[in-house]
Amino acid sequence: MANFKYNYIEQAFSVIKSKIVKTPLVTNDYINKLTENNVYFKLENLQITGSFKYRGALHKILKLSESSKKKGVIAYSSGNHAQAVAYASNQNNINAKIIMPNNAPKIKINNTKKYGAEVVLYDPNKEQRETIGQNIALEENRTLVKPYDDYDIIAGQGTVGLEIVDQLKEIKVVPNLYLCCCGGGGLIAGSSTYLKYAFPQISCYSVEPEGFEDTSRSLLSGKIESNTLGKKSICDALLAFQPGNLTFPINKKNLDGGLVVKEEETKKSIITIAENLKIIIEPGGAVAAAAILSKKLNIKNKNIVVMLSGGNIDPDIFSTLN
Amino acid sequence: MANFKYNYIEQAFSVIKSKIVKTPLVTNDYINKLTENNVYFKLENLQITGSFKYRGALHKILKLSESSKKKGVIAYSSGNHAQAVAYASNQNNINAKIIMPNNAPKIKINNTKKYGAEVVLYDPNKEQRETIGQNIALEENRTLVKPYDDYDIIAGQGTVGLEIVDQLKEIKVVPNLYLCCCGGGGLIAGSSTYLKYAFPQISCYSVEPEGFEDTSRSLLSGKIESNTLGKKSICDALLAFQPGNLTFPINKKNLDGGLVVKEEETKKSIITIAENLKIIIEPGGAVAAAAILSKKLNIKNKNIVVMLSGGNIDPDIFSTLN
Repeated sequence: MANFKYNYIEQAFSVIKSKIVKTPLVTNDYINKLTENNVYFKLENLQITGSFKYRGALHKILKLSESSKKKGVIAYSSGNHAQAVAYASNQNNINAKIIMPNNAPKIKINNTKKYGAEVVLYDPNKEQRETIGQNIALEENRTLVKPYDDYDIIAGQGTVGLEIVDQLKEIKVVPNLYLCCCGGGGLIAGSSTYLKYAFPQISCYSVEPEGFEDTSRSLLSGKIESNTLGKKSICDALLAFQPGNLTFPINKKNLDGGLVVKEEETKKSIITIAENLKIIIEPGGAVAAAAILSKKLNIKNKNIVVMLSGGNIDPDIFSTLN
Repeated sequence: MANFKYNYIEQAFSVIKSKIVKTPLVTNDYINKLTENNVYFKLENLQITGSFKYRGALHKILKLSESSKKKGVIAYSSGNHAQAVAYASNQNNINAKIIMPNNAPKIKINNTKKYGAEVVLYDPNKEQRETIGQNIALEENRTLVKPYDDYDIIAGQGTVGLEIVDQLKEIKVVPNLYLCCCGGGGLIAGSSTYLKYAFPQISCYSVEPEGFEDTSRSLLSGKIESNTLGKKSICDALLAFQPGNLTFPINKKNLDGGLVVKEEETKKSIITIAENLKIIIEPGGAVAAAAILSKKLNIKNKNIVVMLSGGNIDPDIFSTLN
């Protein structure tokens, strides 16, 4: 049973709010007409390190004891959590070691190094990042900063929900629907908790890329289901093998269901977002937009909050989408 | 002598503020290190219609008499002012006719039509847009909404300066320098007026693309100088033939000088901005960033405000920059 509550998110916000960007919540007339709804996009691509991951990583790191800070941290990540932990560590004079797959986007590996972390590459087809991470954590006495399955991380990531609530109240909009990408499920667990606290009638849906719809299937069966091995997706940020042990009970309670989008729909939505909102979204950050732009739900005239969770796409990949 | 004052901008802001986006002012650690300064970017690409032009066009249109609104408006523009006038007209049920060069970016022509305006294309090598515009205005009794040489437009565009002042005060930053792109000079005339009112010690520089440095040369000679005919530039938004009769006296009073950037520097800065800020800037909107990224001024540890004025770039052109 999930006992994760909205006030945990308020506490996290008080810890990190002066050190993060309050990212814009924007709407666009053309997209509203196209989708026949009022869509409010939360631009977490404009967050420090280019994704929402900074909220959780910074929260976790600021809460470490002084002795843990001195011993340093370790994290495993396909890239956005890597950059977030690297930068949050750098800002707080903490030594960081990050385990990344050798096929992660170049921009993510380079930024992680640029932020001063030591990067350890592994082969995702042969090795388990969790095992490598736990071994180094034990050997070197480092604190493992998990990407999602940790209440401090979920609460930090959930602060994006608190901001959305503030921003909607400012413009006097009551949301009907919340669509959010889902990898391990930390972002949607935290943010849906706050949105449902402020707007109890809101419906919340996870959005996943085809082939990695573990949360969608888990919500249907009521228990944690895994992805089939060997699948591929352009959404490098959403390839978690299964929902988290902490995130899933929260999502099971909060979510109305899970949507799944095709690769072509995701690519097309990146272009539509670029053309109309003038921003760059990475594939994993675009699936919630893809769900509404591809009309996965048969709805009209609703107020829909869509999470755009990150913008760390390799420029050469972005260039090929058009 | 320029008698254009900061309080005109405050009046304009009170007219339009509930109908525009308060665009973010953002800073980026990597770019700060690279440039050895603290750079604050104003993201007018996130403004409605994708550029600052909406501020001025909306202000002008909201101030029209009811009878003028009924007769409709006309505007000539390479594209950003076109979209702004089209959208502002559409929002206020006003008929709009827009004269655009037949070589304007496709995205700008398409958006102008999408916003409900009638587009009249002309050949910029054979015809003068000002003549066509004035003729239609007379024949059809339409109000001509000029792109910059009108105090209502300058004041509306200047509201971006008022927002920058608010945002800097919120984070307790006193700016040393302001860099802003310059075509006809409306944006920099209005915004520098407000910045110099709030921060009298600030230095302000216009930035223009090579071949279209009319304001730079006019500031040096002290009188309005024109560009040589026949030059080309990727910065379609900055090709005004000479400074405006109303904008130049203001800029002569406010500006410390004019900087000029090369095409390659502009292209490179679009990529640097995309990679680090996760946003899309058009060439004309990127020249101020190009000036600081290419170190046109030999300065360190200064607080620099850089205007990113618009994001309406054809996706296929954006894709070729990388």
